Amino acid sequence: MKGVFNFSHIIFRMRYVAAYLLAALSGNNSPSADDLKKIIGSVGIDCEADKITKIIGELKGKNIEELITKG
Amino acid sequence: MKGVFNFSHIIFRMRYVAAYLLAALSGNNSPSADDLKKIIGSVGIDCEADKITKIIGELKGKNIEELITKG
Repeated sequence: MKGVFNFSHIIFRMRYVAAYLLAALSGNNSPSADDLKKIIGSVGIDCEADKITKIIGELKGKNIEELITKG
Repeated sequence: MKGVFNFSHIIFRMRYVAAYLLAALSGNNSPSADDLKKIIGSVGIDCEADKITKIIGELKGKNIEELITKG
């Protein structure tokens, strides 16, 4: 349902932001879907390639400060 | 030198916060040193067990909002 607060979606998205942030903080300024898949896989969670690619597209180019404050 | 702005220390610490955050967002509310080592290892960075244990001690008990805003 559109407009309904979706908590699980936020958690899901924040996971990608945390993984992207970790990659960026480790000197990888342009993490690939495979990089994020590996990081998220390290906590035992599988993720879908198409979702990763979509989120990478949204996060790419943001600086670390923006990632933290806006996600 | 005490009091001198240490950028590399901040980056180093933020890596742990990002890893801790990822663990917390994946349902692990009390990540161990090994959990964080595995996550940080996934980006190809080795980390020292004593530093991880120290940082875990500082982060433990903070909620996700505090982690993001205060680190």
